[in-house]
Amino acid sequence: MTMPQTQPHPAAPDFAAIEDAARLIAGHATLTPLLESPLLNARLGGRLLVKAEPLQRTGSFKFRGAFNRIGRLSAAERRTGVVAFSSGNHAQGVAAAAQLVGAPAVIVMPADAPGIKVANTRAYGAEVVSYDRFGEDREAIGRRIRDERGAVLVPPYDDPHIIAGQGTVGLEIAAQARAAGIAIDAVAACASGGGLVAGIALALEATSPGTAVHVCEPAGFDDHARSLEADARLANAPGAQSICDALLAATPGEITFSINRRLLHSGIAVTDDEVLRAMGVAFRDLKLVVEPGGAVALAAALSGKLPVAGRTVVVVCSGGNVDPLTFGRALATL
Amino acid sequence: MTMPQTQPHPAAPDFAAIEDAARLIAGHATLTPLLESPLLNARLGGRLLVKAEPLQRTGSFKFRGAFNRIGRLSAAERRTGVVAFSSGNHAQGVAAAAQLVGAPAVIVMPADAPGIKVANTRAYGAEVVSYDRFGEDREAIGRRIRDERGAVLVPPYDDPHIIAGQGTVGLEIAAQARAAGIAIDAVAACASGGGLVAGIALALEATSPGTAVHVCEPAGFDDHARSLEADARLANAPGAQSICDALLAATPGEITFSINRRLLHSGIAVTDDEVLRAMGVAFRDLKLVVEPGGAVALAAALSGKLPVAGRTVVVVCSGGNVDPLTFGRALATL
Repeated sequence: MTMPQTQPHPAAPDFAAIEDAARLIAGHATLTPLLESPLLNARLGGRLLVKAEPLQRTGSFKFRGAFNRIGRLSAAERRTGVVAFSSGNHAQGVAAAAQLVGAPAVIVMPADAPGIKVANTRAYGAEVVSYDRFGEDREAIGRRIRDERGAVLVPPYDDPHIIAGQGTVGLEIAAQARAAGIAIDAVAACASGGGLVAGIALALEATSPGTAVHVCEPAGFDDHARSLEADARLANAPGAQSICDALLAATPGEITFSINRRLLHSGIAVTDDEVLRAMGVAFRDLKLVVEPGGAVALAAALSGKLPVAGRTVVVVCSGGNVDPLTFGRALATL
Repeated sequence: MTMPQTQPHPAAPDFAAIEDAARLIAGHATLTPLLESPLLNARLGGRLLVKAEPLQRTGSFKFRGAFNRIGRLSAAERRTGVVAFSSGNHAQGVAAAAQLVGAPAVIVMPADAPGIKVANTRAYGAEVVSYDRFGEDREAIGRRIRDERGAVLVPPYDDPHIIAGQGTVGLEIAAQARAAGIAIDAVAACASGGGLVAGIALALEATSPGTAVHVCEPAGFDDHARSLEADARLANAPGAQSICDALLAATPGEITFSINRRLLHSGIAVTDDEVLRAMGVAFRDLKLVVEPGGAVALAAALSGKLPVAGRTVVVVCSGGNVDPLTFGRALATL
């Protein structure tokens, strides 16, 4: 399946939209730290900085994009509320953002989503509708609820406000590096639909143009890497499995890929074992709880697939919503 | 055993010493974030802020005091180096600070210290000397090495530069709260020898005088709490056990207690079970890895012993150097 694209998507946000998002989310989102471990740097022979989005409100970067969309709802839209489909981090971001503006939220979540993600989404006051990830179409369920209730659909990535909101991660990385006098050779971030890495690439194009941006994915779900090579949106083969529950989208988004094909350097795929080891290193050397999907960029750096030696590399750890049982598997790698 | 004290100790640092420490450690120590979880706040019915010292260089606040002492060594002292005795966090702080200024370091550590603490102390280039915590006197061993090598002894708490360095935690808490427009009702921090809480109390006396400062300790090691009530330094009964390996000093320090008896509101003791549950909550709601001794103040807040409802309370999570096996016990509480 190929879907050739030669034009930039008309709905793609620009850099000004990211600056605007930064203004809107300020005081609601957390300015997350860039963490660093001198011991880890010594082992890698370079400088590795970790953008710590597990410390973001709701435990992942997803709050940024969700609030940048939901914070713009009209008074009438706030009354009818929002609907979203999500494996769990976008769910929590949308639920928390909706709660902050007083809008009801319905979230369509897979029946096998991690318990912590379902529990927290409900704790933020949202109604959760479960579906079977292997037999039902979450987008169709989301659209049906939107039509029945008149709710605003908040998509997980293919939306200019969502992409611009996630782009504030890149804006912060550039500002934090500049303040510390650090020049960044490369930035790596994960992708499911590609909103985070697209937003980061847009932000760095304007603020740190010499920085190479890489997209990282679980093995078997490397649709972005293959799409970049083919310069066309390719789907993952069905039937693949990964512990990275947050990164299982089947293809790159349309808007996101129109940005990523122009701005990304390359894609890197990592195995579940590499992800679990990266979670263990984040526990031991950074004192940071990272979920599997949040650890793929760190895994790329630690595995050597993204070289750090002699360079300064920033990896985004995108979320930390992980159940104790899965975290125990990461501890067992130490 | 009582040791009445009515005079302030002549070596006690003042507020200017803490401001001076902040200048010296800037650019070497990390300005750690004040973390917050809206879900946790909702459950507690108040506002709980967590000063995240596991994200400090070396994984605990101890680097602050160590660098504030070792950064002042003369050129001759840097050549002969330093010696310290420590259960592990002061060890890493001293080793890392010594490495930064190019001084050799010898650290006397208990044979049963957590593996991560011993391994990291060595990784920072220090020589580790083991001793039997139940049969040998670490201070005597430290003094002997000092005399043999001409090294400077860097004590864990009873030293004006160490106390002033730890006091930068309080300085940062006050500045971060002020920047966010937050008035703090209470601050709680752990104590072994009492340097951290003494430094914080000195900093807050000058910057946030309406804030009550509490000291938190493991049950069976509540020497500060009992000493505050008696207004005299009391020792712990021998034979007590706790998973809080960082908090097992037998009595409050002399200098530290001369500060704490004047400035602390009260002491709170927590059980090992309360500590493990607090570590689990930090994992789940804050995405922060906290070691047992680092979690006692959080445990005081979560257990209700330090009331949060209707108030704004800051707890210091002082460190995150914990072995996977112990962390697994915390995960099992969820």
